[in-house]
Amino acid sequence: MSSTDFSCSARVYYEDTDAGGVVYYANYLKFFERARTEWGRAAGIRQSELNESRGLIFPVKSVAIEYHAPAKLDDELKLSAMVERVGRASIQFKQEIRRVCGTDSVLLADGRVTVVCVDVKDFRPRAIPDDILEKIRSQA
Amino acid sequence: MSSTDFSCSARVYYEDTDAGGVVYYANYLKFFERARTEWGRAAGIRQSELNESRGLIFPVKSVAIEYHAPAKLDDELKLSAMVERVGRASIQFKQEIRRVCGTDSVLLADGRVTVVCVDVKDFRPRAIPDDILEKIRSQA
Amino acid sequence: MSSTDFSCSARVYYEDTDAGGVVYYANYLKFFERARTEWGRAAGIRQSELNESRGLIFPVKSVAIEYHAPAKLDDELKLSAMVERVGRASIQFKQEIRRVCGTDSVLLADGRVTVVCVDVKDFRPRAIPDDILEKIRSQA
Amino acid sequence: MSSTDFSCSARVYYEDTDAGGVVYYANYLKFFERARTEWGRAAGIRQSELNESRGLIFPVKSVAIEYHAPAKLDDELKLSAMVERVGRASIQFKQEIRRVCGTDSVLLADGRVTVVCVDVKDFRPRAIPDDILEKIRSQA
Repeated sequence: MSSTDFSCSARVYYEDTDAGGVVYYANYLKFFERARTEWGRAAGIRQSELNESRGLIFPVKSVAIEYHAPAKLDDELKLSAMVERVGRASIQFKQEIRRVCGTDSVLLADGRVTVVCVDVKDFRPRAIPDDILEKIRSQA
Repeated sequence: MSSTDFSCSARVYYEDTDAGGVVYYANYLKFFERARTEWGRAAGIRQSELNESRGLIFPVKSVAIEYHAPAKLDDELKLSAMVERVGRASIQFKQEIRRVCGTDSVLLADGRVTVVCVDVKDFRPRAIPDDILEKIRSQA
Repeated sequence: MSSTDFSCSARVYYEDTDAGGVVYYANYLKFFERARTEWGRAAGIRQSELNESRGLIFPVKSVAIEYHAPAKLDDELKLSAMVERVGRASIQFKQEIRRVCGTDSVLLADGRVTVVCVDVKDFRPRAIPDDILEKIRSQA
Repeated sequence: MSSTDFSCSARVYYEDTDAGGVVYYANYLKFFERARTEWGRAAGIRQSELNESRGLIFPVKSVAIEYHAPAKLDDELKLSAMVERVGRASIQFKQEIRRVCGTDSVLLADGRVTVVCVDVKDFRPRAIPDDILEKIRSQA
């Protein structure tokens, strides 16, 4: 990923794992979303505020994810999100989850997630407001 | 439990388990809620309808749960809910989770859950509407 | 999907939803897995048994999912899984989630999931045992 | 709580919420466990290590929780855990979840959680090893 991608960290707890002894496959999508949310926060975008003041939410339209190696209990993870494309009503992210090992890291999963700006009442697409677009671009 | 308690069944999937090889402790509360929801459905109470048409929801006020034996992957569970007390704005349930073994069953967890009728906008308690009270009593 | 695909049903509970008022995007992967698990059970494959007796598990290698319409609280869902391809150590499924409306249904999400047969100890791929392959093919 | 209790912080994401617009009631138990885990880490106890090297895990025996006010999307939480009692094979924690508001905080939920030291193979209670007891007491 480029040097401009955003990342934050997370820890693996029992809640994230399953009886296979590793993180449950659906839960990587939770880690993906934490990274997108923190990316937004760093750009000055708070989802709860957007929902309350303008009735806009950003549900996910599609996900493609590859699992390379399993995350395990107590692992320290590095979660990253990078904007690949911004449309009139959508944002496409490239995302990665890495296990941190000292100063090194190992790729555990990566993928693409596309979110769409919709009205919370009818889930119809709406153009991303200009001020939000500006924040996205400044951060991307 | 009395012969009048309500029960439904559920299966344990990977999503419910953790790296200890058993169902994650928080997930028993999901099973508890499925039983309360199906109890309500059997009584003619649909939570989504109550929320949309009257702005009422029933968040949980307190839980006390004892774990007796672990539920495991592929277990078939019997979930039960029995109304113990109905207040002006609250309902107290006695609940059980049992593993089904042929015609027998083993107690895995039991507890008490109290829910409160509140306005979805401000989460302030509101009296349970009379028609709902009637449905609760007919089912209890 | 073909007439030979497998399906089972599920109900949407509060546990599945998020503050957007709809099912949380990661939770559709739980529904996908329930369908694969029930497909296996119908074919005579029990995952807990495979793990305990042969040390084999089937973690997910990749997922591609499209979200078409949101599932909501109390929705009755039809979950389907169809085997598209069987490799030496992998199985690729085509999956769908539909909302049941009387005798009709609406597509909410569909996608592809590839699982790999691995040793539970080291997560290295292992050939799917012949008797399991036979069960997969009889069911596919 | 006393000045000796342990606390860490967490953020509320969509994954934690439900269609009531607030954190799902079972998920407070995830926050409780994160606090206990981080308390253990601060005391030099790593659960994954205990499991792998000595075959010991600490499943929950009982929970009593009161919900005072709902946690919401984007809330910053303070999670605390304090050891109330240490038995031969059990530890009882007093726990709290607070919403952080600047330099102040509001109590959202509190409760008691008792965990038991068991053998991961048969889930039978085992005495907590002396070196672990010492770490617990130094931290409590």
